[in-house]
Amino acid sequence: MTKRICIIGAGPSGLAQLRAFQSAAEKGADIPDIVCYEMQDNWGGLWNYSWRTGVDKYGYPNHASMYRYLWTNGPKEGLEFADYTFDEHFGRSIASYPPREVMYDYIEGRVNRAGVRDWIRFSTLVRDVRYEDGRFVVTTRNNKEDTESVEVFDHVIVASGHFSTPNVPYYPGFEGFNGRILHAHDFRDAREFIDKDILILGTSYSAEDIGSQCWKYGCKSVTVAHRTAPMGFKWPDNWREVHKLEKVEGKTAYFGDGTSKQVDAIILCTGYKHHFPFLPDDLRLRTANRLATADLYKGVVYTKNPKLFYLGMQDQWYTFNMFDAQAWWVRDVILGRIALPDQATMDADPKQREAEEDKIEDDYGCIEYQGAYVQELIDETDYPSFDIQAANEAFYQWKKHKKENIMTFRDHADYVSPMTGAKSPAHHTPWVEELDDSMASYLKA
Amino acid sequence: MTKRICIIGAGPSGLAQLRAFQSAAEKGADIPDIVCYEMQDNWGGLWNYSWRTGVDKYGYPNHASMYRYLWTNGPKEGLEFADYTFDEHFGRSIASYPPREVMYDYIEGRVNRAGVRDWIRFSTLVRDVRYEDGRFVVTTRNNKEDTESVEVFDHVIVASGHFSTPNVPYYPGFEGFNGRILHAHDFRDAREFIDKDILILGTSYSAEDIGSQCWKYGCKSVTVAHRTAPMGFKWPDNWREVHKLEKVEGKTAYFGDGTSKQVDAIILCTGYKHHFPFLPDDLRLRTANRLATADLYKGVVYTKNPKLFYLGMQDQWYTFNMFDAQAWWVRDVILGRIALPDQATMDADPKQREAEEDKIEDDYGCIEYQGAYVQELIDETDYPSFDIQAANEAFYQWKKHKKENIMTFRDHADYVSPMTGAKSPAHHTPWVEELDDSMASYLKA
Repeated sequence: MTKRICIIGAGPSGLAQLRAFQSAAEKGADIPDIVCYEMQDNWGGLWNYSWRTGVDKYGYPNHASMYRYLWTNGPKEGLEFADYTFDEHFGRSIASYPPREVMYDYIEGRVNRAGVRDWIRFSTLVRDVRYEDGRFVVTTRNNKEDTESVEVFDHVIVASGHFSTPNVPYYPGFEGFNGRILHAHDFRDAREFIDKDILILGTSYSAEDIGSQCWKYGCKSVTVAHRTAPMGFKWPDNWREVHKLEKVEGKTAYFGDGTSKQVDAIILCTGYKHHFPFLPDDLRLRTANRLATADLYKGVVYTKNPKLFYLGMQDQWYTFNMFDAQAWWVRDVILGRIALPDQATMDADPKQREAEEDKIEDDYGCIEYQGAYVQELIDETDYPSFDIQAANEAFYQWKKHKKENIMTFRDHADYVSPMTGAKSPAHHTPWVEELDDSMASYLKA
Repeated sequence: MTKRICIIGAGPSGLAQLRAFQSAAEKGADIPDIVCYEMQDNWGGLWNYSWRTGVDKYGYPNHASMYRYLWTNGPKEGLEFADYTFDEHFGRSIASYPPREVMYDYIEGRVNRAGVRDWIRFSTLVRDVRYEDGRFVVTTRNNKEDTESVEVFDHVIVASGHFSTPNVPYYPGFEGFNGRILHAHDFRDAREFIDKDILILGTSYSAEDIGSQCWKYGCKSVTVAHRTAPMGFKWPDNWREVHKLEKVEGKTAYFGDGTSKQVDAIILCTGYKHHFPFLPDDLRLRTANRLATADLYKGVVYTKNPKLFYLGMQDQWYTFNMFDAQAWWVRDVILGRIALPDQATMDADPKQREAEEDKIEDDYGCIEYQGAYVQELIDETDYPSFDIQAANEAFYQWKKHKKENIMTFRDHADYVSPMTGAKSPAHHTPWVEELDDSMASYLKA
């Protein structure tokens, strides 16, 4: 009997898995029956933009954390697909920090060509997964038709992402704040904050990028409160980094350094949860957001049930091509091309990886560590090999450019593609001056 | 073996069910084992205020639709508990439109005295209910402990409410609107909209009350777009009712009557869904929001599985004491005091009720219809009988006062309690002038 595979989610990780299987079939392999469930009406995962916040049109938590005017916050040279380059998709070279619509087009281009759309059941939420008698019983709800189905699978691959369920801490006085409190997950249009004083909590990518956007589109001031250390970039004059938020009274925020500021909105850039509401205790991954995830052999095989896989659950420097490396590797386990070792070996692997990660001293070490992990996986499959060192270099350059000037780092050219070796051109307009983030504008000559 | 009863939700309906059983026990009856699951950390359902929007602290859809500064939008004389009057709780008579904190205190007073808190498992989400071999298998997740449990019950009573999952329509241009779009469910603090031009879609209670609040706290203007007919109250000068929204461009909204308006925020007062993500197809109620709900015998027994009950699923003029009437009636079915008729009779009942409802000509007819329904139920149990006609009269007066002046209707006194016959006193401060909605302020002499 043909094996049946369930993939949960049709974002970058799930699509990588579909492409991995389709690529094997294209080369003549017998592949299993594949069903991919996607709760949204379209593919692309987080790269789908939705104006909705809170719940989706069916009443379930909105997956989208995407906001308008988003440009990639890292160079495209770090995330390029090895089997489908940017040059191939666009027919020419483009600059290194494309906005969302351009990225979406690229992601979609590969899977359109692969012809895997029919494997996906859209508007279909996975409601429950049970492991019974050696197989997975998967209950789904088609929200368009308002009906449930139950199907049985030999393997489940969880590719539902971990940037959709906000982590939202409470601070004293939040219940009485006289402005808007929102998490980055619900941030949509920076123009809402024109002439506003905004307070951002957090110091990671959301804080940096949402703050920069609000500044670019004309907010009055940005105040960023940190619990441990400031981001430390050279910020504009109306941007201030302060100690942690102590409390809010009315519209006034009080900070640990004794200062205070009247603000109109508080944007919580406080991260996301690994959240799997469809999984029972025995199948549910519990991990910190780190490079070496707990309980995953080779970063993908759930050690407590090795018929279950997770993609993309790591904290990420590498993204799309790491998901690819994982998807090709998982595919080969399912196809019997890669054999899993005994339980003790599998259990030891994530612990070993954690120990290695704990030795890393800085971001450069993290990049190198994750690059080596990608290399390790692609060495064991037929995923096209690529120049990991060049990708690492793209990340190093990016960090350097950010440090030089956080508001101009996206204007740099000469990042080297790890796939083609070509250098990226400069974009026609500096990021701070380009208020139109459409693909038409980005791709114009 | 003692029967086991599962109640889903500890809001006004679920608490009514707990009180119904406790009241029987107090009078000497043998009652079943009762477990009430509540996803929030406290009881009160919608009457819990939370500053959170989107998801709750555990990552599940936030139940709260409550906003700051809410005063009841109907007279307390229409919703009074027959077994626990306002006079009894507060030790004196209070005015007819109390703010949230006062109402919460009243709701809590009855169940505190009943001593039923131990029957409730807080922070516990019902994830799945299955009907197997004549009993209900209920899977829950304790979100505080991040663990699942499965328990088996003879009856399930769904009391999860239907004002928590927003119905959010799309209008052309929403994806590019340069302000904030929110549903009433996510409205929290009217002061966020001081000096703002707001657009409200919808003409029911949320539209009326959120608009009035924003006006009271100082928004610049209120524009309300309707699809069928305007609300038609005598609105203030900076309040305008317009035809339906056609599209949005930038911050400009265009309406069906050819007018347009630049707005800062769009508040969708477009209603809620009956939403039961924890129920499979065969147990899930599908009904319009109406007085005669589909598939519910006597408005509470699920005709497709009469061991399953639903409380409070009706569109509502009557609320708390209707939930009580339903809860006492369901209790008596479970205790064997009321026998259910044959299937054909049960199936015919909601159809008959629908036909009766369809004949109603106006709101006064609706109030009378629902009053008669409450009377029908309480006549068949030991719920303290009360003067339904007096409650109806309170609603009629309320409608008259709103029609006279929508911004002063809450200032009226002399509503008659259907429980005590006493008339309500006037409040010390007109609603438009009272910016402090705290219980301390409301109850001060």
